[in-house]
Amino acid sequence: MPILEIFSQGEEIVTGQTVDTNAAWLSEQAVQLGFTVARHTAVGDKLGDLVGLLKEISERADCCLCTGGLGPTSDDLTADAVAEAFGLRLEFDETAYRQIQAYFSNRQRPMPETNRKQALLPQGSIRLDNDWGTAPGFALQAGRCWFAFMPGVPSEMRAMFLEHVMPQLKDRFVLAPSRLVTIKTFGIGESDIQQRLEGLKVPASVQLGFRAGIDEVQTKLLFPADYPEERISLLTADTAARLGDFVFGIDGLAGEIGNLASVVDRLMTEAGKTLAVIETASQGLLAAKCTGAAWLKSALFEPSASALGRHFGLALNENDLADAGQRLAHALREHEEAGFILVQLYEGGPDRLHDKDRSIILYNTLLTEDACRQNRHNLGGPISRKQNQAALLGLDLLRRHLQNRQI
Amino acid sequence: MPILEIFSQGEEIVTGQTVDTNAAWLSEQAVQLGFTVARHTAVGDKLGDLVGLLKEISERADCCLCTGGLGPTSDDLTADAVAEAFGLRLEFDETAYRQIQAYFSNRQRPMPETNRKQALLPQGSIRLDNDWGTAPGFALQAGRCWFAFMPGVPSEMRAMFLEHVMPQLKDRFVLAPSRLVTIKTFGIGESDIQQRLEGLKVPASVQLGFRAGIDEVQTKLLFPADYPEERISLLTADTAARLGDFVFGIDGLAGEIGNLASVVDRLMTEAGKTLAVIETASQGLLAAKCTGAAWLKSALFEPSASALGRHFGLALNENDLADAGQRLAHALREHEEAGFILVQLYEGGPDRLHDKDRSIILYNTLLTEDACRQNRHNLGGPISRKQNQAALLGLDLLRRHLQNRQI
Repeated sequence: MPILEIFSQGEEIVTGQTVDTNAAWLSEQAVQLGFTVARHTAVGDKLGDLVGLLKEISERADCCLCTGGLGPTSDDLTADAVAEAFGLRLEFDETAYRQIQAYFSNRQRPMPETNRKQALLPQGSIRLDNDWGTAPGFALQAGRCWFAFMPGVPSEMRAMFLEHVMPQLKDRFVLAPSRLVTIKTFGIGESDIQQRLEGLKVPASVQLGFRAGIDEVQTKLLFPADYPEERISLLTADTAARLGDFVFGIDGLAGEIGNLASVVDRLMTEAGKTLAVIETASQGLLAAKCTGAAWLKSALFEPSASALGRHFGLALNENDLADAGQRLAHALREHEEAGFILVQLYEGGPDRLHDKDRSIILYNTLLTEDACRQNRHNLGGPISRKQNQAALLGLDLLRRHLQNRQI
Repeated sequence: MPILEIFSQGEEIVTGQTVDTNAAWLSEQAVQLGFTVARHTAVGDKLGDLVGLLKEISERADCCLCTGGLGPTSDDLTADAVAEAFGLRLEFDETAYRQIQAYFSNRQRPMPETNRKQALLPQGSIRLDNDWGTAPGFALQAGRCWFAFMPGVPSEMRAMFLEHVMPQLKDRFVLAPSRLVTIKTFGIGESDIQQRLEGLKVPASVQLGFRAGIDEVQTKLLFPADYPEERISLLTADTAARLGDFVFGIDGLAGEIGNLASVVDRLMTEAGKTLAVIETASQGLLAAKCTGAAWLKSALFEPSASALGRHFGLALNENDLADAGQRLAHALREHEEAGFILVQLYEGGPDRLHDKDRSIILYNTLLTEDACRQNRHNLGGPISRKQNQAALLGLDLLRRHLQNRQI
């Protein structure tokens, strides 16, 4: 398998101001394409370090994916370093320049003269268009290695990689892609998952891994190239079955399913339902996670059940939040033409909400055309974690209802 | 300043299964201590790669902080690699062995025989006790470089670094901690900032840098140790003055100010004001950014001015959103006992909101006890960017009002 390296440039990375998530993302892509990823390196904005490193890599790797250092400022040195390392001139790229101009004119802003520098590309390189920002990337062969230089802004980098770099990698290298299946769960921790998977028979050629994030825990199965499709399905199904209804989706079987909010978006759209929400602990974050969803008719945040009671003219019993949730859901239904009503309340007040060492109890009520489902959860940790978990638990209740699963 | 490198070992890092947060954390610690962090490198579990890299680093760095590869399994090769790279024997460390045994007996679990391997340390190294897991670390001088090897599990690594490694760094190196001042702006791009700073006299010993994020652009001044306080203040003030009222705060003069939402939180709390919000394009995100703020009385999201008009029983002119914003603000004031009312509307509808190549026009109205301030902005890019910018522009209007600045 061809050897690939990842190279990140930026003072903010070597000084630890920014965690280099680009390296992990690109590595995962490269492994799936069939490369052996041998090394990640990050250096700051020093021309000598950059030049030295580029030369080293050109001698030991077949491919190098590089990010950062393409901006307009004086500490963006990638093109200069490439020119110096490989004895190339920088040439003015007319098309790149027009694209940078267009970026600014589309935003009705004058183009600063410093951005002109971004149109200077090393001679003989291929321009990689950037439809999402000002910095064009470029690619070139130097020594043993084919280099692709992309911006450091993750969204621009990802789009450029998928659209312009990946197709060239497939053309230029003979690759036997491995296959990554990711089982995504919410509401269950990594060690619980590991316990549930004890006894699962994973062949030696298949790599089992885990990644715990704030929003989901991923269980990963990396299958070697040409692993039989049928056995991929069987092992995936066995693994997912052990994780039960905590699984909200699986990536890598029939495409990518996205995060929990994307799954809910698809389920709501397919079901043709609409939603109105009342939020407390999540403070707008539940609505915010449903970015641009046409099915979200309204969301109201107020800090407490008592404030909501005043808003709707209800005398609510704050010691019975299950009942308060139901009454608020029915009251909101009077005002909103939405199929589903979701009401979130919590016990513990602002003191416990703010205290990272104490927990709150979250009550979710989902009122549909013909049913009312409720659940409650203990939420601990810093307030930002409680806020995020509250938002996700609301979405997960919707997901479970729409998938007709136990709540 | 002594040169420091960060070295991470692990197949899960080079394949992208795990994001290397250790590297960023250790770098930040090292920079604050007064090291120059020159490079991060991550390699997988291949003995040859590890040996080669350790030799390289021993020749070019004064210090190297290493994580990973200390576990009990056959792919944990760090001690072997160190022994081979520097021609050292591995020696059985009785104390380390007893600590590993104690770890298991404390958990009432039998010690697997494979863990015995973790007590083998390179001859002449200092043991770094691990009170939080099984793998002891170790440290040694090799060539020019003092190496500290720590476990890859972040919690174990951090505890070991703070307790056992940091004190030794302070003993072994003559360190002069540098001073970082960060000027934080919102609403102005990196290249515009560079233009405004043309002509600013930055002494050669001071490093000027920029970091553009989604939520803010940072202009950084890194002053060497013992730089006179008065000259730090003067250069910071001169730089900030050139950026005008785009500056929402400065870190590193009198503590850390946090992000725009934290600044608004402090200003609102100090002013003793309360707020009620109507959101459209930001869809709950403005409220969500004010996590746990006691001054936020309510937030309502509805997708459009017409939906809001129906909600409040107003016949709004959708071709005059400045007027609609004012009328909604006054209507909301009838219902809410909040000192400030912020109403966000946008022109362009869902089509333009979703289209990354088209922009929307955002109208913010801030109604205070004695004034009504409005502004409008063009927002382009993907919907998630428009959503985020809309939230931040609302907060920034509040910030500018509270700081008595021009809006």
